[in-house]
Amino acid sequence: MRINIIGIGLLGGSFAMGLRKTRPEFEFIGVEANHIHAQKAVDLGIVDKVLPLDEALAVADLSVLATPVNIIERLLPEVLDKLPAHGKVIDLGSTKQIICDKVRKHPKRSQFVAAHPMAGTENSGPDAAFATLMKGKTVVICEKESSDPQAVYLVESLFRELGMVIDYMNAVDHDLHLAYVSHLSHITSFALGLTVLGKEKDEKRIFELASTGFSSTVRLAKSSPAMWAPIFAQNKANVCQALDGYIESLQIFKDAIQHSEEHSYQLMEKANDIRRILSGIEKKSVNS
Amino acid sequence: MRINIIGIGLLGGSFAMGLRKTRPEFEFIGVEANHIHAQKAVDLGIVDKVLPLDEALAVADLSVLATPVNIIERLLPEVLDKLPAHGKVIDLGSTKQIICDKVRKHPKRSQFVAAHPMAGTENSGPDAAFATLMKGKTVVICEKESSDPQAVYLVESLFRELGMVIDYMNAVDHDLHLAYVSHLSHITSFALGLTVLGKEKDEKRIFELASTGFSSTVRLAKSSPAMWAPIFAQNKANVCQALDGYIESLQIFKDAIQHSEEHSYQLMEKANDIRRILSGIEKKSVNS
Repeated sequence: MRINIIGIGLLGGSFAMGLRKTRPEFEFIGVEANHIHAQKAVDLGIVDKVLPLDEALAVADLSVLATPVNIIERLLPEVLDKLPAHGKVIDLGSTKQIICDKVRKHPKRSQFVAAHPMAGTENSGPDAAFATLMKGKTVVICEKESSDPQAVYLVESLFRELGMVIDYMNAVDHDLHLAYVSHLSHITSFALGLTVLGKEKDEKRIFELASTGFSSTVRLAKSSPAMWAPIFAQNKANVCQALDGYIESLQIFKDAIQHSEEHSYQLMEKANDIRRILSGIEKKSVNS
Repeated sequence: MRINIIGIGLLGGSFAMGLRKTRPEFEFIGVEANHIHAQKAVDLGIVDKVLPLDEALAVADLSVLATPVNIIERLLPEVLDKLPAHGKVIDLGSTKQIICDKVRKHPKRSQFVAAHPMAGTENSGPDAAFATLMKGKTVVICEKESSDPQAVYLVESLFRELGMVIDYMNAVDHDLHLAYVSHLSHITSFALGLTVLGKEKDEKRIFELASTGFSSTVRLAKSSPAMWAPIFAQNKANVCQALDGYIESLQIFKDAIQHSEEHSYQLMEKANDIRRILSGIEKKSVNS
């Protein structure tokens, strides 16, 4: 089996590194526009070689689109156009609706599987990749019925080898859920970073005072703008709806802090329910 | 040396457990209104015994007020009234202005040192305490000049034994900085929890989708309302100012997502600066 990683960064690189562990017989090739990343990906042994897109597509059994979502949107139709009959392609993008819509009527649509492995860190590039990134996490497959069953079988088998749990959704639901559970988290963190950087001109102070919870809530503010700007743009309507809800929650909280300690207590008690739900997740991660 | 922990929870318990490691000769006693916590604190070996407040104050060299800040505000004048001449008292509260103001003119003010060890987790109670909680973290001493130098020397020595870095601030500055760097983080997280719980009625969905960053940004939403409601109430003006700035940042972000992907990119690039500042912090924690 020859797997072609298009965009050898955190996600694409980790996908290859994870499979290399269980499948040393697989060959990994890559397509990478950034020459420094391309060289690093070879040096780190993530891929055996980097090829031009057309050559890589011609020889690969499976091509993995792991670029930012705006590039996936642009490349996917071209990749399908050039895909040989035996070839299959998946994307790993964090949005699904625009990407699925883009190729809905493509004659080779069934050779494509839309996937979103829900794993990541605030770091990016091939240096950030590691073999166990996806282990124990969920991958969402969207619009499974539009893909060839053999392609779905192959892709699911590979994600299972990486230790992932498979989930199915339509692309519209996926993008709505992700706006709340992932995209909003990133915005809350970016905005927290901006607010504190704007107020605390003295960096040493931030540095000294940041031990009480700030580091973890602001962690995602380190994430790559090249990855996230296109995600927010593609999922604009859902993200703005989630942001409106979040701003409303903040205003309710502010009002409670100003006028009723009892109400502020009750709001926090309600939010505490997240502990019960997440302790389920933590248990699941440990067991899987 | 006999140390008296008033409120044997995460912070007071960890203070005792940390010192027990380096100072097995110290005696630790405690005052605890919650009978289950009192029994647990003895069972876990955090304190040797639990006493009524008056008895504990009479025999302790140092009393440590480690209750929620509203209880500190109420108890501190009474503790000072009853403090024997050799006794010293510190508080570990997350707000400082109201607490310092409360005893500014107390005849025994110099026997009190106002301290805020900036360490914590989202968990509470004696079960949550552990010996290394404060290691490598910063403790802020406020209004040092109002405390007896011997009391300051004792308290600083103990915090140094716990591996803490000492910092000084006046109470007004402390509360302003903390509103941005700690209190705001907690509110962003509580509000995120409320928003997602409000929208995602299907808990299984939250559970499945929460791997991409949500868990870390929402972690603080598990924090104790009994601890945080009084902090927000005592630091109301600063916290509301910080919240206004944060809501403004979110609105700027939302506007950028709606109208200009380039602007949204630039905002994230600016927020990324937090990586440089926090990598300094991480280095410091590793080294100390």
